[in-house]
Amino acid sequence: MSTPLSRPGKKDIEDRLAFIISATQASATVILPYFRSPLIVDHKQGQGRFDPVTEADRAGEEIIRKMIEETYPDDAIFGEEFGKKSGTSPYCWVLDPIDGTRSFISGIPLWGTLIGLTFNGSALMGAMNQPYIGELFLGSPQGSIVLKDGHETRLKTRRCAKLSNALMGSTAPEIFDKPEDLAAFERVKSAVKLTRFGGDCYLYSLVAAGQLDLVVETGLNAYDIAALVPIVENAGGIITTWEGSPASDGGRIMAAGCAELHEATLQLLQG
Amino acid sequence: MSTPLSRPGKKDIEDRLAFIISATQASATVILPYFRSPLIVDHKQGQGRFDPVTEADRAGEEIIRKMIEETYPDDAIFGEEFGKKSGTSPYCWVLDPIDGTRSFISGIPLWGTLIGLTFNGSALMGAMNQPYIGELFLGSPQGSIVLKDGHETRLKTRRCAKLSNALMGSTAPEIFDKPEDLAAFERVKSAVKLTRFGGDCYLYSLVAAGQLDLVVETGLNAYDIAALVPIVENAGGIITTWEGSPASDGGRIMAAGCAELHEATLQLLQG
Repeated sequence: MSTPLSRPGKKDIEDRLAFIISATQASATVILPYFRSPLIVDHKQGQGRFDPVTEADRAGEEIIRKMIEETYPDDAIFGEEFGKKSGTSPYCWVLDPIDGTRSFISGIPLWGTLIGLTFNGSALMGAMNQPYIGELFLGSPQGSIVLKDGHETRLKTRRCAKLSNALMGSTAPEIFDKPEDLAAFERVKSAVKLTRFGGDCYLYSLVAAGQLDLVVETGLNAYDIAALVPIVENAGGIITTWEGSPASDGGRIMAAGCAELHEATLQLLQG
Repeated sequence: MSTPLSRPGKKDIEDRLAFIISATQASATVILPYFRSPLIVDHKQGQGRFDPVTEADRAGEEIIRKMIEETYPDDAIFGEEFGKKSGTSPYCWVLDPIDGTRSFISGIPLWGTLIGLTFNGSALMGAMNQPYIGELFLGSPQGSIVLKDGHETRLKTRRCAKLSNALMGSTAPEIFDKPEDLAAFERVKSAVKLTRFGGDCYLYSLVAAGQLDLVVETGLNAYDIAALVPIVENAGGIITTWEGSPASDGGRIMAAGCAELHEATLQLLQG
């Protein structure tokens, strides 16, 4: 039986989409001044990877958390920089103010501000904002879209049934720090037409846009992926762990534009 | 003794800079409609690498060549798509309408339209235009700048004397198709702080902008690099072959933001 809290209503989804757009605009105003400027970079140890944290990262998350606490005080929050705040509603905001910090410190505009929203633990809606380019990717039960220069374009993954025709993206060969994971990735890399390195969150948005067919990565945290799940899924794509489980808690993640490619890639990854 | 043709005058440089800006605008109008659209990709065999040629590539070069032939009929032209046209002036235009076709077909806005101009065989000025982002990088004896959203920002490389502090960019590990070149690249990669894959012409522009310290690549053609040499050099950087020779004919190329880093990298590359 459906209760008022068993799933969010249309009005609530629309209100929260509008809120997410406001939050991306606010975070962009504090993050953008740091992009392509000299930065104070300090190094955070995260699973042995190079994971710089910047002032921009902290400032971006602070402003988004403040907006959430004002507008949705009952919701939980989980952010990369400032951790977890528990809530009393079914909603949890999952935040990564700068996903792709290595791109950010290199001046490459393929980083993004990720704002995800889960409902009873399941990914509900999400945003990937790239303010230097001026692109906002949004996914929700109303569908997936990209906003740029005042234009709204609906996102749709493309069908690519054969691995040999697939264009794959992945952040870097170095992220596969376990030999067996690297071997699994190499099996897929040998099977696809082209692999493009570099991109982080931007790559998942390009799967949603029907430009890339596949993303294969490891070592993701929930805040790296929760916002991207609704963007990929509501564009027609499939995003799971390498075991085929829900992706929004992170781990070893794979996104594909169609079911056939997802299945073929799962088989290769699992050996 | 200096003759009128021994070097270009200030007025000629200004006129030709204005012409280059017009040419980037014209080529953008024919190239951009293909970006993020379904494309007919055919495969050109070029040194064993994946080198797709698109309709956009051809249309972009056609419009630039037409403009050159109308405005500067005596100049030579060397373009990626339509080859060489000889001239009677000391000038040669070196064109790559879409450098980074792998980025282009993947929906990643790190490709660029390259328009270079040599004078008596030496790089004189150049442009790297990324019209989806709306960025135009320009280098000439008047200095290097980037134009975005109506703002002009002067480009200046940064000093990074130690390899261990350097951020390096390179298009992909696969471009090093000779084992000894890959080994040389790996020596540099092991010495620097961070290596970012993916980017083509965009990486050289980021060295000029003082965001990256180093680019190391192989297998470049003249049209991949001639336009980028003036952007890097007039921002204070050093760009040569791995042997330290002029870069504008292509080959194995290295760009560094400062002389110390250039020297240290040369030594590592030469083993």
